Amino acid sequence: MDRLYADFARNSTAPLWTQTTDLMPAAPAPAAVPHVWKWSELLDIARRSGDLVPVGRGGERRAIGLANPGLAPTAYATPTLWCAIQWLGPRETAPEHRHAQNAFRFVIEGEGVWTVVDGDPVAMRRGDLLMTPGWCFHGHHNETDEPMAWIDGLDVPLAHDLDFGFFEFGPETVTDTSTPPISRSERVWAHPGLTPLSAQAPSGSTPIAAYRWEHTDRALAEQLLLEREGHAVTVEPGHAAVKYTNPTTGGDVLPTIRCEFHRLRAGAATAPRREVGSSIWQVFQGDGRVTLGTEERALTTGDLFVVPSWVPWSLDAETELDLFRFSDAPVVEKLQYHRPR
Amino acid sequence: MDRLYADFARNSTAPLWTQTTDLMPAAPAPAAVPHVWKWSELLDIARRSGDLVPVGRGGERRAIGLANPGLAPTAYATPTLWCAIQWLGPRETAPEHRHAQNAFRFVIEGEGVWTVVDGDPVAMRRGDLLMTPGWCFHGHHNETDEPMAWIDGLDVPLAHDLDFGFFEFGPETVTDTSTPPISRSERVWAHPGLTPLSAQAPSGSTPIAAYRWEHTDRALAEQLLLEREGHAVTVEPGHAAVKYTNPTTGGDVLPTIRCEFHRLRAGAATAPRREVGSSIWQVFQGDGRVTLGTEERALTTGDLFVVPSWVPWSLDAETELDLFRFSDAPVVEKLQYHRPR
Amino acid sequence: MDRLYADFARNSTAPLWTQTTDLMPAAPAPAAVPHVWKWSELLDIARRSGDLVPVGRGGERRAIGLANPGLAPTAYATPTLWCAIQWLGPRETAPEHRHAQNAFRFVIEGEGVWTVVDGDPVAMRRGDLLMTPGWCFHGHHNETDEPMAWIDGLDVPLAHDLDFGFFEFGPETVTDTSTPPISRSERVWAHPGLTPLSAQAPSGSTPIAAYRWEHTDRALAEQLLLEREGHAVTVEPGHAAVKYTNPTTGGDVLPTIRCEFHRLRAGAATAPRREVGSSIWQVFQGDGRVTLGTEERALTTGDLFVVPSWVPWSLDAETELDLFRFSDAPVVEKLQYHRPR
Amino acid sequence: MDRLYADFARNSTAPLWTQTTDLMPAAPAPAAVPHVWKWSELLDIARRSGDLVPVGRGGERRAIGLANPGLAPTAYATPTLWCAIQWLGPRETAPEHRHAQNAFRFVIEGEGVWTVVDGDPVAMRRGDLLMTPGWCFHGHHNETDEPMAWIDGLDVPLAHDLDFGFFEFGPETVTDTSTPPISRSERVWAHPGLTPLSAQAPSGSTPIAAYRWEHTDRALAEQLLLEREGHAVTVEPGHAAVKYTNPTTGGDVLPTIRCEFHRLRAGAATAPRREVGSSIWQVFQGDGRVTLGTEERALTTGDLFVVPSWVPWSLDAETELDLFRFSDAPVVEKLQYHRPR
Repeated sequence: MDRLYADFARNSTAPLWTQTTDLMPAAPAPAAVPHVWKWSELLDIARRSGDLVPVGRGGERRAIGLANPGLAPTAYATPTLWCAIQWLGPRETAPEHRHAQNAFRFVIEGEGVWTVVDGDPVAMRRGDLLMTPGWCFHGHHNETDEPMAWIDGLDVPLAHDLDFGFFEFGPETVTDTSTPPISRSERVWAHPGLTPLSAQAPSGSTPIAAYRWEHTDRALAEQLLLEREGHAVTVEPGHAAVKYTNPTTGGDVLPTIRCEFHRLRAGAATAPRREVGSSIWQVFQGDGRVTLGTEERALTTGDLFVVPSWVPWSLDAETELDLFRFSDAPVVEKLQYHRPR
Repeated sequence: MDRLYADFARNSTAPLWTQTTDLMPAAPAPAAVPHVWKWSELLDIARRSGDLVPVGRGGERRAIGLANPGLAPTAYATPTLWCAIQWLGPRETAPEHRHAQNAFRFVIEGEGVWTVVDGDPVAMRRGDLLMTPGWCFHGHHNETDEPMAWIDGLDVPLAHDLDFGFFEFGPETVTDTSTPPISRSERVWAHPGLTPLSAQAPSGSTPIAAYRWEHTDRALAEQLLLEREGHAVTVEPGHAAVKYTNPTTGGDVLPTIRCEFHRLRAGAATAPRREVGSSIWQVFQGDGRVTLGTEERALTTGDLFVVPSWVPWSLDAETELDLFRFSDAPVVEKLQYHRPR
Repeated sequence: MDRLYADFARNSTAPLWTQTTDLMPAAPAPAAVPHVWKWSELLDIARRSGDLVPVGRGGERRAIGLANPGLAPTAYATPTLWCAIQWLGPRETAPEHRHAQNAFRFVIEGEGVWTVVDGDPVAMRRGDLLMTPGWCFHGHHNETDEPMAWIDGLDVPLAHDLDFGFFEFGPETVTDTSTPPISRSERVWAHPGLTPLSAQAPSGSTPIAAYRWEHTDRALAEQLLLEREGHAVTVEPGHAAVKYTNPTTGGDVLPTIRCEFHRLRAGAATAPRREVGSSIWQVFQGDGRVTLGTEERALTTGDLFVVPSWVPWSLDAETELDLFRFSDAPVVEKLQYHRPR
Repeated sequence: MDRLYADFARNSTAPLWTQTTDLMPAAPAPAAVPHVWKWSELLDIARRSGDLVPVGRGGERRAIGLANPGLAPTAYATPTLWCAIQWLGPRETAPEHRHAQNAFRFVIEGEGVWTVVDGDPVAMRRGDLLMTPGWCFHGHHNETDEPMAWIDGLDVPLAHDLDFGFFEFGPETVTDTSTPPISRSERVWAHPGLTPLSAQAPSGSTPIAAYRWEHTDRALAEQLLLEREGHAVTVEPGHAAVKYTNPTTGGDVLPTIRCEFHRLRAGAATAPRREVGSSIWQVFQGDGRVTLGTEERALTTGDLFVVPSWVPWSLDAETELDLFRFSDAPVVEKLQYHRPR
């Protein structure tokens, strides 16, 4: 028997019967753990990085990743998702590059940075969701005397672990330094239900480079108003939510990442849920609590938390509570691993 | 031989060889003809109908159909499309009904009528496109002391000739007489790129009951501005255009009807085009000329014209020229009859 | 009032209120009527046509269409479907042509003709379904000293009335006179669940030029056997049925036409059904009865009958009863007119 | 600076700038390495496992996984795919279970085992591909006095690392011990281009439980014959190949795994190719060589090799060379990471 097991190893093989339970648990048993990051601490560490670490070619971005304690030594937030706080000092530029990996940015405070996506300058402002689909060149430049911080979301762990990614350097400065209030992509695409007749075939990624806070805010406010008027449009009582969508398909904004925004009335609570696949939330505004599995944690503006696959979660709002969420739900659904059981 | 031909008839049969050329011409040879209807004349006849003909159960609508001279004795505008001017007098109500046939309304002047679609009151204003997808109950009521006229577009000829249609009477008065400035459907759905998380599966018909003029106007203006700034977003020089779309799919607003809006700069002209399938245009504003086949006709605000299948058309704008268009393009494309040759 | 009605006509318009009931009935009210054609009579008339009428350029085909008595003066079987018996004498050739209209042939007796589809010779034998998707060149040649008859099915009425069709003459003789037992298309595509790796994108029409009787027969036999063994695979007790499908999509063989084959055990009966859209059936073998609306008619091998939209139909099998069916169901479904109510 | 880096760790964060190159390489830089496993060695080790290790509840399967040397300590063949040789002794039973993970088996020699998939007994014979889509109960039983070996392919690494998997035990013996030559699924579904009319909506996994060697062999033979006759149906000269497909969609057999079979004429060689995503090949029959990156290795019947993402591969056939292949191509394509650059 010992010789057999030695021969397994010698032949680059391994018996299934010693591994079944770990490899194929009854339900998802993530190595990733539920975790909360405090915005105040992230902001502090980002600011200090801004003082000490230059931004530029090679390092590319002054971004500090949320490293799930269960996934050490990687800096992954979940097995599929990367999330980082990025810091850009006054008048700084993060050089252009592109990658097959899909990316977005979400802003909870500040303004004055433009991200230039395939030559289209996109202003970044509080509450905005900015898209950088795979293989678009992009760089950032701060046109003010104030630093700015935001979060980046990418499918870097997925692309890295599955060996799907490509990367290419672009110019060291952004290709268009103009600072229009809205991007060309929005001028063409961000009209409700209207598509340019010159548009080509539907794309797997959204053509809208910026989803502006004013629209998100209004959509959520209307849902809660309609609920009060007696119409069933919320997810559950006191819980409004929107999905950011690709207007060419009605589907998700990116092939691998779903983005949502949730608003809870003060005092509202969500029913406990659990889902196949992982997600990351950021409190945009307000105070409340999240229960992740059996543990309850306080939340305030800017705090981030991760929900690994199949971990039950629920939210309680003390004040009106606004949260941004992104997840790997498109991966789960396209690979048909979402079926309820 | 005579006996053979007599037996064809006697047996409810007919030889192909006597019919091939008509049945299967080298290219579409429509019975429908190009035709222009003058808005001034339609409005006059509609006003007189308003004076003489009541609206109510049975007749259902005070609508006057554009009867293509080539399709007599029907009142079809094309083999697939119905188009009518509808007139609703001060304080009148057109009772509720529903039909499997798909419908929309487009407004070139006036306001003060609400169309109630499955219980959702939808204000009708200049430049708006109002949707009534198949099998939605709908009625109209005029809340003012002024009459109002608009055009209706439906796929009634298609459904009638192919025996696909169903019809059901609803209440004689509208189910909700409130007069909100925008419909509930817009409050839920008409936010660019945002979908309620509570939404069900994608639908073949748009959930947006009203596409408002302010959005259409802005989208067209931006296209022309972007063109001036050197970006290729127009159909051709000086010719901006949008397609109204279903946000749940990115596709057409109705399963059988495509709706578009076109804007030509003053002095612009379109290249001659011809397409499989028929369409109907209405000048929303401005002066110009249309060439249909070999005939050129003057156009002014409100005028309607029909382009039968495969008839070459082109437009010349004297002033800035805005036009609404609807067509059976979804039918052509879904049945894969659109392939270029 | 008279002047108003005169002005309607003068302005190429027509009031809806005089037409609502006919235009938009409560349920489909087809002009087409249920009808049965006896195969013996069709065969007789086709044989006599063979004696009297040449086949060749211009007339193109010696095909005798089933002319629905309700659709006179057209020779349409239904508003969307054309069905004809085609007769090809010994050693005759029907010249090549192509059309955007979709076509198939179904053989209930005889053999010895090859249809050449875009250069691929396809043997025609009893029980086979032969496909000629839109815009494929095709001609037929009889390599024997016996005449052969079969039925043609096309969407000619649909394409004609909607102005979608194109037609082009090809060579007067077929481009390949070889007589292989199976076509190249079958050698590449007619293997269960196997697709050539070199295949391009999915197509709206099947790449299989011939669906052979041996496969259809076996599939139906297995369904009835499995039913006897206690497994639910039939449509209803004693009623087996298959849909011919496009292996690149799993959907219908043609963009506008569905083809099916049904087998009833001797003594079996179907529940009454009615559907939106029209269909045509041919008895392939056996004796029975069909009820169309309220009228019952006897059926024997070769008989054809038409079921207009929304007409209830049911079948009773005296012997084992095999029937081929084709319908416009893809049109109904793609245009979303199929929803049950 | 040291304090900053300490604080990164203390706050469960990590700077991107120290990781960019590894995390986001210019092109996929797989940890997995190209590797060849000799069938003779696998068979020997499997036989010895058969002598020493029982099969039954808990261990579930006597399966020995191919452990990619670059992915230690896991037993993954690639980051997405698991591949094992499974051994079932005379009269043995592997108990029933089910999992959300997708699985198939491929047989290069032997027969006499039935795999029972959701109650349907499926005979396993040389050259057959047997499907076990996610969440189908399945067990295996050997009805002979000879052992049998085959390979299993699953998406276990993907489901494990992304936390998508579920697992459930079933009965300890198979639910149907009958031994029909073909499964019920084949009797219903394995007819070329024919679908039971009673079938429900298209499914993401194939309903065909067994793709039989006789069909695969014939399809490949026809491609090579057609090539000789001058028709372009092979992948490249002397290289025939089929994709196993789901007849309800025309797409891949499983949501995450593509299965193919390739045949090279003696003396043929493939052009070097590289693809995003990983694949595993098994020589079904013949002798040849594979070049993986810069290394060339000899191959004979039964040998397996793995091609990590973006590693160039090519094949040379000494004899006629038949190979089975499976890959994660559906994952790459659905997540839109396949775009050529």
